[in-house]
Amino acid sequence: MNDALGAFVAGTDVVVQGATQGPLAGLSFAAKDLFDVQGYVTGCGNPDWLRTHAPARRSAWCVERLLAAGATLVGKTVTDEISLGLLGINRFYGTPVNPRAVDRVAGGSSSGSAAAVAGGLVDVALGTDSGGSVRVPSSYTGVYGLRPTHGAIPVEGMMTQSPTFDTVGFFADDAARLEALGDVLLPASADAAIEELLIATDAFALVDDVVRAALAGAVQRVSGAVPRVSSVAVAPEGLATWCSNQRLLQSFEFGRTFASWVDRVNPTFSFEVGRSLALAARVTEGDLAEPHQLRASARARLDELLGGGRILCLPTTPQLPVRRDATLTEMSSACDRIVELTCIAGLTGLPQVNLPLGRTAEGIPVGLSLIGSRGADRQLLKLAGQLSRIAQPAS
Amino acid sequence: MNDALGAFVAGTDVVVQGATQGPLAGLSFAAKDLFDVQGYVTGCGNPDWLRTHAPARRSAWCVERLLAAGATLVGKTVTDEISLGLLGINRFYGTPVNPRAVDRVAGGSSSGSAAAVAGGLVDVALGTDSGGSVRVPSSYTGVYGLRPTHGAIPVEGMMTQSPTFDTVGFFADDAARLEALGDVLLPASADAAIEELLIATDAFALVDDVVRAALAGAVQRVSGAVPRVSSVAVAPEGLATWCSNQRLLQSFEFGRTFASWVDRVNPTFSFEVGRSLALAARVTEGDLAEPHQLRASARARLDELLGGGRILCLPTTPQLPVRRDATLTEMSSACDRIVELTCIAGLTGLPQVNLPLGRTAEGIPVGLSLIGSRGADRQLLKLAGQLSRIAQPAS
Repeated sequence: MNDALGAFVAGTDVVVQGATQGPLAGLSFAAKDLFDVQGYVTGCGNPDWLRTHAPARRSAWCVERLLAAGATLVGKTVTDEISLGLLGINRFYGTPVNPRAVDRVAGGSSSGSAAAVAGGLVDVALGTDSGGSVRVPSSYTGVYGLRPTHGAIPVEGMMTQSPTFDTVGFFADDAARLEALGDVLLPASADAAIEELLIATDAFALVDDVVRAALAGAVQRVSGAVPRVSSVAVAPEGLATWCSNQRLLQSFEFGRTFASWVDRVNPTFSFEVGRSLALAARVTEGDLAEPHQLRASARARLDELLGGGRILCLPTTPQLPVRRDATLTEMSSACDRIVELTCIAGLTGLPQVNLPLGRTAEGIPVGLSLIGSRGADRQLLKLAGQLSRIAQPAS
Repeated sequence: MNDALGAFVAGTDVVVQGATQGPLAGLSFAAKDLFDVQGYVTGCGNPDWLRTHAPARRSAWCVERLLAAGATLVGKTVTDEISLGLLGINRFYGTPVNPRAVDRVAGGSSSGSAAAVAGGLVDVALGTDSGGSVRVPSSYTGVYGLRPTHGAIPVEGMMTQSPTFDTVGFFADDAARLEALGDVLLPASADAAIEELLIATDAFALVDDVVRAALAGAVQRVSGAVPRVSSVAVAPEGLATWCSNQRLLQSFEFGRTFASWVDRVNPTFSFEVGRSLALAARVTEGDLAEPHQLRASARARLDELLGGGRILCLPTTPQLPVRRDATLTEMSSACDRIVELTCIAGLTGLPQVNLPLGRTAEGIPVGLSLIGSRGADRQLLKLAGQLSRIAQPAS
């Protein structure tokens, strides 16, 4: 495969032919290297992980599902190390090129999947999203991406990091294909109509002017596609508070997930990832009482806000992707800001779709997001399809 | 060079002929890869450091000094990554073999220098010691090693990490050679006699039974070589307190030393080292008031104890070297215990010599240490020489 983008894991040629018939027949797909593919070691973006794990005995649930639906797996895509990252930077396997902003990162941790879709190397791709790992790269590379309702798609055969946050997500460069993937992967749901769009004022207030400006037209188009539009501040406690609680809870979980392997192997990591794990190890059960409470009230808040066919509209990411040569300080600052937006669906477990409807004057993609009620994944995908048919992205 | 021990940095053939005449003429030496050697990049045990630094324009002061005294440099030795480690484990350049306990670590961070001396690959070697990096490997490999009085030997051309702790130290398998090196590297000092040996009861209380047993004969021999012997508890605040204060001060310093490079490069580290740096970055000036006070009182305490020709006798390390396949928890626990002993000379800046006079029943080396008053480095080396002539290590 021609991979000028560095989207695929070098040295791993994986092709698994899909079923000859099925709703995805003829489509190619890539899977982030967190998903098991029978007979291959799932490398998870870190050479020590690769070295210390055995080949998978069977493929991940979602990989099998796509194969059975007719899609052909054509490769494993690069991920941020053990999925800990939001920018798409990997010091071991390379930082995939963002084909729509070549001097900037593609976003992560599902970086290779987003880059491969945006660059036309595959039709669709699987990613994972715990803290934003599908939403961020889909926003940065200008593709459609869904983080589903937590628990809607089985994580069997996927490297999990934070069980109460982990989801299987997916990317397509076309809303119809995203919807087709959803039909195969998501459980059936009642076809409730979308009644009202809530513009998340606190989320929009956090973003850079360039992002807000790039999304203005897209917000108008989405507003025109729903019966009613109103505004709401999502987080009574402030998004910064939601963010810090998401991070604490998620850290605690991934710290525990990786602890015994880290202790046994003393793996090599980029400093960014080693630091995340080092700080995670210092979070104790006792630190979690307040975050658990906050999460419960955030869930109640969103369940109430999004009842009755309401969906939330917000920017997917608060700033343009950082440059590929960003310093650690710039990277950390970018991640701190990103999670102030991604924590909304993260903490509450709700589905969020990224629509690639915004673009800066220089052509850098800027994503707009819709968050639906628990289980409203298919309605979101359907609306994305409608929007793509009635409106083209600004040029 | 035949390097079955993995003591030398692979792929770096460095030979610099020493002067034809001089007090060290005919001796070979190795320098830890923290010392500049003109024309070579000082790699500091981390590939990203190597990649992001230029060749040295001139050799380190102590390297030049040994060359001028007639010793020939025959190689650069492996160090723990950027000198942060006490066990001699390096995930990038390999963990040097301890020739006297082949299934156990050689100690670090001057691991390769100690292994090369113990294995007879070189006559003498240069190391560095901030938190114990000469003392630990000399104890573990059963060689003589000096951590000099802080400031006694210029650190020019050496990668420093914690300026108020960093020292240039050295190793030899023979006390006479250690003394000869001292004559070349140390400033002249008045030849004050040693009047009294103080057995550090709190230090001996901390060590494993196997260590105490292995040192019993050595303590007797040293006691027989001095006019008077008595006992003392070194640290009124407890050695655990001294240890935690040394670590906090040292962390703060090395955190600052490496911060801008880490920020620019986001280097890859073993988790152990990445964690040290991550936690160091969280130490603030405000955390240091108490440690500074403690350090001042520790200095006053030792200056008083060691006045009038007194020297302190203590175990160099509290337990046998960990096995080469130790888990991170075992490694961390070993380091925590080591610094409870090495902090005595570390915090106070006093000279400490390791004497390879102990050995377990299985032949594993156990070092005995002497700490002298500020500037008494030469007296310590002289006493080491006397002891080596009057007593052979237990077999």
